[in-house]
Amino acid sequence: MDGTGYDDAVRLARIAHPEGVAFGSIEADGDNDDAAQVLEIADHPFGKPNYTGRRWPLADVRLLAPILPTKVIAVGRNYAKHAQEFGNEVPAEPMIFLKPSTSVIGPHSPIKLPPSSSQVDFEGELAVVIGQPVKNVRPEQARAAILGYTVANDVSARDHQAADGQWGRAKGFDTFCPIGPWIETAVDPADLRLTTEVDGVVKQDARTSDMVHKVDDLVAFVSSVMTLLPGDMIITGTPEGVGRIEEGQQVSITIEGIGTLTNPVQSA
Amino acid sequence: MDGTGYDDAVRLARIAHPEGVAFGSIEADGDNDDAAQVLEIADHPFGKPNYTGRRWPLADVRLLAPILPTKVIAVGRNYAKHAQEFGNEVPAEPMIFLKPSTSVIGPHSPIKLPPSSSQVDFEGELAVVIGQPVKNVRPEQARAAILGYTVANDVSARDHQAADGQWGRAKGFDTFCPIGPWIETAVDPADLRLTTEVDGVVKQDARTSDMVHKVDDLVAFVSSVMTLLPGDMIITGTPEGVGRIEEGQQVSITIEGIGTLTNPVQSA
Repeated sequence: MDGTGYDDAVRLARIAHPEGVAFGSIEADGDNDDAAQVLEIADHPFGKPNYTGRRWPLADVRLLAPILPTKVIAVGRNYAKHAQEFGNEVPAEPMIFLKPSTSVIGPHSPIKLPPSSSQVDFEGELAVVIGQPVKNVRPEQARAAILGYTVANDVSARDHQAADGQWGRAKGFDTFCPIGPWIETAVDPADLRLTTEVDGVVKQDARTSDMVHKVDDLVAFVSSVMTLLPGDMIITGTPEGVGRIEEGQQVSITIEGIGTLTNPVQSA
Repeated sequence: MDGTGYDDAVRLARIAHPEGVAFGSIEADGDNDDAAQVLEIADHPFGKPNYTGRRWPLADVRLLAPILPTKVIAVGRNYAKHAQEFGNEVPAEPMIFLKPSTSVIGPHSPIKLPPSSSQVDFEGELAVVIGQPVKNVRPEQARAAILGYTVANDVSARDHQAADGQWGRAKGFDTFCPIGPWIETAVDPADLRLTTEVDGVVKQDARTSDMVHKVDDLVAFVSSVMTLLPGDMIITGTPEGVGRIEEGQQVSITIEGIGTLTNPVQSA
């Protein structure tokens, strides 16, 4: 494998700009976010990126879900203290399930509470974005298959989750997979602080170093089961502190070195 | 909704022909399969089909998976006698889970047994293929959203399924979702005989009328959770009689009014 084509740190976004929708990379100007520019990428961000030469001020575009995955593989019970919250053991091998691609939304798009549920929870998670087709990679090969990292919210209807056994409904509703705000191609995922706030109140505050199964092992494990395609995402489990979100609230998940994913909560 | 554009019974296939890959409809010549022709459809089979005018003898083309779904929603424990086989209750509401799009293969492609499993089972199922985007349809509107029906094998690594809790691994391996041989647009799914044979020995012999949750109710239920897109599939559960498949065997699932899906079994 040749790696993803990004040797340097690139911040990849998908944007709605005045003339349409495109991928782009965000070029910061020091700490002055107002001066940041988005450089448009032709077609898609995989392999060697091809810049069109067009650019927009970040302030003038809308950030969309940074990628449209063909599948989202989620990992259950991957932080010991979160498993304990629900009285569960940590599984010896990763416990995986799928969220549908139709559940993906971008930053600031509303999470819609389904009428059938009376308890919807946030779950802040580190998301791994795959950069090239892979099957049966070893853990030490995994990094070359990764495009980068973003933030995900594994929104879960807790009452359906408890009742159904399988989590296809509880975690599969439209809007139940917010991702963003962008993909960082060069962050080291090993030990990043993850915090979740609901209306400014800190609910989760943990480090990715507390993961039971680490990023490289997860990519290897999932790729031993199914072929991973460019844009596919592995969301790596949530730490302790999960809790309810209600209509009118805002949930913000921040991962050190990546950014903050914020979504309002609405009735469906 | 305008329906799928197929007022008459059409048998839709995806084929590899001498010049590439295409969708097509199969035009029979009475009971003489050798004389059947495949009429090429431009682009995709949704909405009003657009025939190119090219045609090939069915005998000269290779049938592929008749559709490439963006998601496959599977229904667990939807036949009472199958639920009993594993000592499970029939759930009051459908229990749904997802199979990845990378698990889909076509007729005569090999099911590959993963080295991590020592018990892989067949599960013969009726598959519903969606014809247009739908959300929150009522059961009485469901038929207009359906393109047609095909045969599916919900291949399952039974040991992983028992150990993992969530079925993302057990039912998500590459090759674990054979579908085909084609999509019948006008069959009534209410009461069709389904039989599964392994090397010619009948293992499952049941009727779709034994489903706990019927096709129209399943489409309504799933669409109350997630948006269904053209090509998405709901596989409707398996009846009693599931069992193991081993290297060198052939598994054939026949549904009355649709056809027979046959796949050999190989080591990965």
